Amino acid sequence: MIGKLINDRVRADKQAMNELYNTGYYGRPKKDGLELALVEAVYLLSRNRLEIELDGHMMDFAGLFKIASMRQKYFELKYIVYRDLRERGFYVQSSVTDLRVYPRGGHPGKTPARSFVHVQSERVPLPLEELLHYLNAAENVRKQMILAVVDEDSDITYYEVARNKPQGAMEAIYPNIHANATFLEDRVVLWDGEPSHTLYENGLYGKLLDSERLQLSLVEGGFLMKNSIIEMSDRAGKIMDFEDFIQKASEIEPEFLQKYNVYEDIRNRKMVAKTGFKFGTHFRVYDQIQSPSKIPHSEYLIHSIAEEHEFTLPVMSRAIRLANSVRKRMLFAVNGRNGIEYIDIGRIKM
Amino acid sequence: MIGKLINDRVRADKQAMNELYNTGYYGRPKKDGLELALVEAVYLLSRNRLEIELDGHMMDFAGLFKIASMRQKYFELKYIVYRDLRERGFYVQSSVTDLRVYPRGGHPGKTPARSFVHVQSERVPLPLEELLHYLNAAENVRKQMILAVVDEDSDITYYEVARNKPQGAMEAIYPNIHANATFLEDRVVLWDGEPSHTLYENGLYGKLLDSERLQLSLVEGGFLMKNSIIEMSDRAGKIMDFEDFIQKASEIEPEFLQKYNVYEDIRNRKMVAKTGFKFGTHFRVYDQIQSPSKIPHSEYLIHSIAEEHEFTLPVMSRAIRLANSVRKRMLFAVNGRNGIEYIDIGRIKM
Repeated sequence: MIGKLINDRVRADKQAMNELYNTGYYGRPKKDGLELALVEAVYLLSRNRLEIELDGHMMDFAGLFKIASMRQKYFELKYIVYRDLRERGFYVQSSVTDLRVYPRGGHPGKTPARSFVHVQSERVPLPLEELLHYLNAAENVRKQMILAVVDEDSDITYYEVARNKPQGAMEAIYPNIHANATFLEDRVVLWDGEPSHTLYENGLYGKLLDSERLQLSLVEGGFLMKNSIIEMSDRAGKIMDFEDFIQKASEIEPEFLQKYNVYEDIRNRKMVAKTGFKFGTHFRVYDQIQSPSKIPHSEYLIHSIAEEHEFTLPVMSRAIRLANSVRKRMLFAVNGRNGIEYIDIGRIKM
Repeated sequence: MIGKLINDRVRADKQAMNELYNTGYYGRPKKDGLELALVEAVYLLSRNRLEIELDGHMMDFAGLFKIASMRQKYFELKYIVYRDLRERGFYVQSSVTDLRVYPRGGHPGKTPARSFVHVQSERVPLPLEELLHYLNAAENVRKQMILAVVDEDSDITYYEVARNKPQGAMEAIYPNIHANATFLEDRVVLWDGEPSHTLYENGLYGKLLDSERLQLSLVEGGFLMKNSIIEMSDRAGKIMDFEDFIQKASEIEPEFLQKYNVYEDIRNRKMVAKTGFKFGTHFRVYDQIQSPSKIPHSEYLIHSIAEEHEFTLPVMSRAIRLANSVRKRMLFAVNGRNGIEYIDIGRIKM
């Protein structure tokens, strides 16, 4: 059987309908024959199921591959992923987000596709906006969104991308405290023993410096200040208002406000956030903590990002791998116009 | 006992020599008494072993702490680390790199100090140049260099920093091959079965695309090209020289040359490097690989950095934690004037 290469498509006659579409769901049936995407045509050539003609000559694999690579952006990557999914036994069709994958046992005409796959090189940064565009395209038709990242060694890592609305069970206990705290160089200290112990034991705020004093992180200090639990002074004793605080904290940490917004949202979702420094993220997050003496496993690592964020794939890969290695989900918290939105990205096996 | 706060030191009289220095090695003996660093004085006040006088008044803990925080940059962080080491039973003195720690069972006058500790906030970027300055200061007097990072929750993570000269046992087998390869969009493909299999099986170069073709990463393609094993053409069939190659690869990946230099150095050290994408680093590195069918555990994750690199501590923390969680050492390969130098940073327990 012969197909003709025309631009970035291969056209085969009606016979191909029987031999390729009806047996393996390759290509898309058209009125006068079958239309194949480049990845399909190259794959069928490699399996000796189709010959490809260009300008009256039959092409060899290398020749077709080089031309395909020139006619379609990131053809090599798409081919590597297409081939991998086919060899794993999935029926795959081309789609708006590169590939559309049918569930095991399903195929076009029998079942709807299950997943939209976007293929990405490890080397090319992925803007959040673009990722959300693919995610929305998939969600709008109730498909799973899969990101297939092809690395330098041509290995593929598959990630599922989804929205998440985490919710905890930690009732906010704001005891009747009005304690004094000092904004030191880059953290906050509460000097009195009683409020220190109460805040530490009821809400896991801060860390005890010694038996009497509590050190608070900047986000904790800001949150308690906004909720009128503590009164904040600077080192010279001057009382600070919340605006002064945000300004000073932003001088120490340029992305402070973005991070603070996520911290506040997490507390409002009845969860407890502590620093995720040891995991390289902003927060590790607990559904509930009964007491500092029995701290449970934390559910999530959460990293706050801006709407204009660009994912660097090796960095994203490391964050997710590390989260998964300690049995946590990795969520990216987007500071958007409609509040905080959580994007859950996790490695999956196809 | 009373000490007087003078600038960023506390002076106590000769009696303090007996009560503080001879029993706990606090401070430095001077002709007319004992001189204490701020961290020592605040710690002794918290333990009620010393009172501190300023301008004729005795100070309380909060008052002294705030003043100390204004008189010494990063005082809070240094205090947190000093206190932690003391409570763990180490004798600690102040030093050029913040703190000097004696080995267990040792103390000033009996044994030399074992480690130099540099204290760093998780929030403040650490230029490589500064880190190397501390490392050199420690190495020059044969001390261990320790980086103590204080995170937002005031938890401390200790890292040991050292130079490393990794060496493998993989003899370079350059078979008599002169194969043709094509530089596609962002990787290289070798089209012929025999050289593909030889390179893959003898040196773990590339990854087989199918039974005949070998995909090479850009660093592998460049290395084999420089060693005259392959001849490289672009997609249109034009032969490329090494300079063309480096230029085109650098367009795809701006830091390509820096990464390539490390790849070449690793191969010259008789080791095998494959991408470390899944770990978020440039390379995972094997001492030796006998055959692709029995790939051993890789020893190192190696990330190439420039001399002007600045470490972001959460990112560094994640890299090291992930490496350690898969039982690998994390090395940072510095592209310096004298070739490639490997800095080994690993978490330690004090």
